[in-house]
Amino acid sequence: MTSGKVRIALDAMGGDHGPEIVIPGAALTLARHPDTQFIIHGNEEVCAPVLAQHPALKAVSTLVHSDIAIRMDDKPSQALRYGRGKSSMWKAIDSVKQGNADVAVSAGNTGALMAMSLFCLRTMANIDRPAIAAIWPTIKGESIVLDVGATIGADARQLVDLAIMGSAMAQIMFDIDKPTVGLLNVGVEEMKGVEEVKLAAKILRETALPGLTYAGFVEGDDIGRGTVDVVVTEGFAGNIALKTAEGTAKQIGTYLKAAMGRTLMSKLGYLLARGAFNELKERLDPRKVNGGVFLGLDGVVIKSHGGTDATGFSAAVDLGYEMVRHDLMAKIRTSLSDSFGHRAAQSASDEASGDSAA
Amino acid sequence: MTSGKVRIALDAMGGDHGPEIVIPGAALTLARHPDTQFIIHGNEEVCAPVLAQHPALKAVSTLVHSDIAIRMDDKPSQALRYGRGKSSMWKAIDSVKQGNADVAVSAGNTGALMAMSLFCLRTMANIDRPAIAAIWPTIKGESIVLDVGATIGADARQLVDLAIMGSAMAQIMFDIDKPTVGLLNVGVEEMKGVEEVKLAAKILRETALPGLTYAGFVEGDDIGRGTVDVVVTEGFAGNIALKTAEGTAKQIGTYLKAAMGRTLMSKLGYLLARGAFNELKERLDPRKVNGGVFLGLDGVVIKSHGGTDATGFSAAVDLGYEMVRHDLMAKIRTSLSDSFGHRAAQSASDEASGDSAA
Repeated sequence: MTSGKVRIALDAMGGDHGPEIVIPGAALTLARHPDTQFIIHGNEEVCAPVLAQHPALKAVSTLVHSDIAIRMDDKPSQALRYGRGKSSMWKAIDSVKQGNADVAVSAGNTGALMAMSLFCLRTMANIDRPAIAAIWPTIKGESIVLDVGATIGADARQLVDLAIMGSAMAQIMFDIDKPTVGLLNVGVEEMKGVEEVKLAAKILRETALPGLTYAGFVEGDDIGRGTVDVVVTEGFAGNIALKTAEGTAKQIGTYLKAAMGRTLMSKLGYLLARGAFNELKERLDPRKVNGGVFLGLDGVVIKSHGGTDATGFSAAVDLGYEMVRHDLMAKIRTSLSDSFGHRAAQSASDEASGDSAA
Repeated sequence: MTSGKVRIALDAMGGDHGPEIVIPGAALTLARHPDTQFIIHGNEEVCAPVLAQHPALKAVSTLVHSDIAIRMDDKPSQALRYGRGKSSMWKAIDSVKQGNADVAVSAGNTGALMAMSLFCLRTMANIDRPAIAAIWPTIKGESIVLDVGATIGADARQLVDLAIMGSAMAQIMFDIDKPTVGLLNVGVEEMKGVEEVKLAAKILRETALPGLTYAGFVEGDDIGRGTVDVVVTEGFAGNIALKTAEGTAKQIGTYLKAAMGRTLMSKLGYLLARGAFNELKERLDPRKVNGGVFLGLDGVVIKSHGGTDATGFSAAVDLGYEMVRHDLMAKIRTSLSDSFGHRAAQSASDEASGDSAA
């Protein structure tokens, strides 16, 4: 997939605003990356007029009708029940499975998207479970944090898998050969972390993985500091860290707004410093780093924030483009087999003897 | 302990600055709360001259010499080895155990302080393990979050214990009868949380605990929003949430500083809005909410931040004062026996039959 066009399947009905932001978002990506083409899954009646407004996009797109759109607040099991095979979300993922697209992008319901992706694409060989990797703005730039909530809990081997997958993604995003990887842990020396985290640390320390540099334990405040390129944790703690950081950013924004509006002097100061405030706002803009990557699946799926606009959605599409253009799947496969030759051998011998891998 | 003086034992050697901040901090508390007296544990040679500068404090204090100070970066086991029985930290805790003080306050090494507190005071009846409760600034005011790292993992009953202890603390801090309590969880409906969290939710929902209002699951972003008075979680996720929020606050502070210093206009704006910035800084000032409360021990121990100054340390001493003045221990005991009459009865019958409680 590194030559030729990058083929992108879109769930046009996903997110709070559907085709109104998905289609203009895709047009923005196309303008930046002319080597793309699109399969747009959605209600034809709704999508066609929007697509008509973007003739350049229309020229490289196929619009595929689907009757059903997955609702933002349905449970994954509900969504699967009414949406499997028929919804725009499912069909976007299925385009990847069928080999018609290289990546699927959706701003829809995260739980439903993960459930459908897992059901449709399955996990890749030698990976037990999928993960959601978030791109986290830091003082130094950006880091990747995973898993932020695809599954709960992880054993040592699954944590090592997260390290490998996150590093492959970091190689592409940050254009470095050996990203630094930290295991998220707590600070009290004596009781440092759960057993699985300690064991994962031992494996990462003792196995010289070619595609990453293991940097040891990191704590919650190391994430924003950008101490490492990739922060590895199981999904419960990862999701809580992500949401807590979002909440703290909102909280400080509220404080700041209240403080700046209180007196005439501070209002005047705000006016004068408006450029700086806008810059700050931009740095905290979730649209700029919009998009989580689903890792560990047998195909690339990108989740955009549901509430985003066209600019934000196009950032998620761009992310998908980069992952395909730089061969995320191949990078993960190579890392896995490089690092776990013995595991691959084991799995091959299992298959030869008629067992299927777990 | 609700009448008469509140007797406060201080580890004068704890923290980055020792007696230089501990003694002036105590003097600030005394000025606010004349119904206090102090036992100051520390190196006499170092402490006496500082204490001499605070005659009012000196008049209500006993200075008890100790040779040994616990270092800030020692492991708990090391600290216990060289500091048990002899260090200022141990002796402050032991003052509580011996009934000579109502509360111990230390700015020392958290791990060592918890290990010594647990070793010296043990847990209270019907509580398996201690917890560290943090006071978390929110948009609405403050909330209590526990456990932020005393132990890792918790079963459903231990989570319910955290809810009870945190609520008793919230009753005192916020002066309300039935604080709202949320269980920290992740957002994907279908797989909502680990089994223990789900089971704890069931217990809290089905048992009408008199001292709290169970408000359901909360997510990481609900903490800063102040959705509930008390956020309950096991110590691994709690510690990561706390550190992540601290890291995010620092990160945004860095962005803000950089943005405001960039142009002449923004610098001028900053000058005009300085009052507002100072107010913001104050709202984010960790000294204002300095102090974690160790809960579940057979005695009250307060942990102050190690790097704090006299103002910050006095906030931690004040917190200890309030907990004693409003009978934290009795409130927890009442809540426990009110809510778990059956558990108390069980434990009594175990004891009568010669078994000791686990």
